[in-house]
Amino acid sequence: MKVHAECYQCFIGQAIRSARLHKSNRYDLLKPVQSVVKVLQDIDVEVPPPLISEDVYGTIRKTLGIDDPYKQIKKKYNDIALSYQEFMEKEVFNSDNPLLFAIRLALAGNIIDFGSQVGKFDLESTIENTIHNPLDLTDFDRFVVELEKAKNVVLLLDNAGEIVFDKILIKTIKRLYPNVNVSVIVRGGPIINDVTVEDAKYVGLDRVANVVDSGQVIPGFWPETASSLAKEVFNSADVVISKGQGNFETLSEIDDQRVYFLFLVKCNVVARYLGMKKFSKIFIKNDKRWEKQQA
Amino acid sequence: MKVHAECYQCFIGQAIRSARLHKSNRYDLLKPVQSVVKVLQDIDVEVPPPLISEDVYGTIRKTLGIDDPYKQIKKKYNDIALSYQEFMEKEVFNSDNPLLFAIRLALAGNIIDFGSQVGKFDLESTIENTIHNPLDLTDFDRFVVELEKAKNVVLLLDNAGEIVFDKILIKTIKRLYPNVNVSVIVRGGPIINDVTVEDAKYVGLDRVANVVDSGQVIPGFWPETASSLAKEVFNSADVVISKGQGNFETLSEIDDQRVYFLFLVKCNVVARYLGMKKFSKIFIKNDKRWEKQQA
Repeated sequence: MKVHAECYQCFIGQAIRSARLHKSNRYDLLKPVQSVVKVLQDIDVEVPPPLISEDVYGTIRKTLGIDDPYKQIKKKYNDIALSYQEFMEKEVFNSDNPLLFAIRLALAGNIIDFGSQVGKFDLESTIENTIHNPLDLTDFDRFVVELEKAKNVVLLLDNAGEIVFDKILIKTIKRLYPNVNVSVIVRGGPIINDVTVEDAKYVGLDRVANVVDSGQVIPGFWPETASSLAKEVFNSADVVISKGQGNFETLSEIDDQRVYFLFLVKCNVVARYLGMKKFSKIFIKNDKRWEKQQA
Repeated sequence: MKVHAECYQCFIGQAIRSARLHKSNRYDLLKPVQSVVKVLQDIDVEVPPPLISEDVYGTIRKTLGIDDPYKQIKKKYNDIALSYQEFMEKEVFNSDNPLLFAIRLALAGNIIDFGSQVGKFDLESTIENTIHNPLDLTDFDRFVVELEKAKNVVLLLDNAGEIVFDKILIKTIKRLYPNVNVSVIVRGGPIINDVTVEDAKYVGLDRVANVVDSGQVIPGFWPETASSLAKEVFNSADVVISKGQGNFETLSEIDDQRVYFLFLVKCNVVARYLGMKKFSKIFIKNDKRWEKQQA
């Protein structure tokens, strides 16, 4: 998905939200916004929005003088999610279809996203809703078939907090398919509340998967400019589980049917692009059927 | 009120909303946004936001190649409001306190505002709510005392559609105080859905009041740069009724206790500035008590 008109509002919103975590004075909020407006002057609108976020977030960070504005928030939500881990693992273990249950949980975890426009959320009711509410499972059987044959599975992670839910999914996959190797790719540095190596280790992901950073400080995954190690890990995958909207925004631009997207739609641009409603739950193979719908 | 960080998002939102009325293609929506981003590069943040809107809206208009993007919308809402006129006039006439009822109605009319972030609204339920729901009337008695002594009353109008409600307020004032002269000041040209001389005449405001345009194409009233006629009319007022958030944004920067603000709070910036919640109903003398609250 490429940059749309509404993305400009969202980039400015990122500056405001990041600044509000640390400042309240009118000038202190204006400064990062003004710096983002300067960056937005000459952006390439033919690329996915997360590629723009690198410069946008870079100038926010610089103007605020804070390298990782979401550091405390990320820790807080990692801790909150960790406090649910045991309960969730039991629920998965005792369910009729542990893989599907774990997929649904990983989807629920995706509501933890301060980069998007969701605003306030309620984790417990989100878990309840996501587990019990309808989810289009058209692609689930295909996913299972591919997973059964897979040697290497790669998860492209998204946000702090959410990664505890992803860890449960990984443990479930490894329990069901003991011969599968699982790797996770995280961001190459702090950007919004996205997961870094530090976060991944904090929640113990390194004990269940091979953790690799993308080498990119963008809230998505863009194979072309990823580090050679991240590229190698990504290319080795038989099945890719791409968590979150940012990874969808980047990888929906690429023909790669190994990829399954798992996320909640959090903005109207993506909703319109997919022909879905905002807050729709998505578990869909990257077969670009939405492009055919629009054509 | 001066420009705040969130205003930048709102200026871009104006471009998107104006464009969407006529275009749907990604590039056609991107172009006005990109032109607004250029304008936002070097704005003065020490002035009220409506003064920035002049250039913002100018470039939107130019990029779209449409002089008055809201022309049809304005006519539509003038017509809708006119269809309620007889009903509303009877309600006012039969009420225990016609002046207060007409004030409440004029407030209800202020929901008709496409420049703000309100989005969809329901006129009938808004009228019901505004008439029956609580309204802080601390300043109403003072307003009545000043109105009783007034020779000249000026209404600073805001939006198309809404002006039918204002017309009922004017007729009520003239019925209760037959010796009062009433003038209305409208915008100097089309900007968002704000009222122009053409709109005022369309709903028959020229039959109940002296209609003057501000000489400014801004969604507010700024005495300093208004036309000499508008300035003369404004200065002659004993009481000023300032409708809408845009006029509040400009006149709250000026010491002028003749002014009573009558509007619905439509954005978080104004809400925070006033120490109120979004969608609060405001009828308040321009005594700047909110500045004292904040100090």
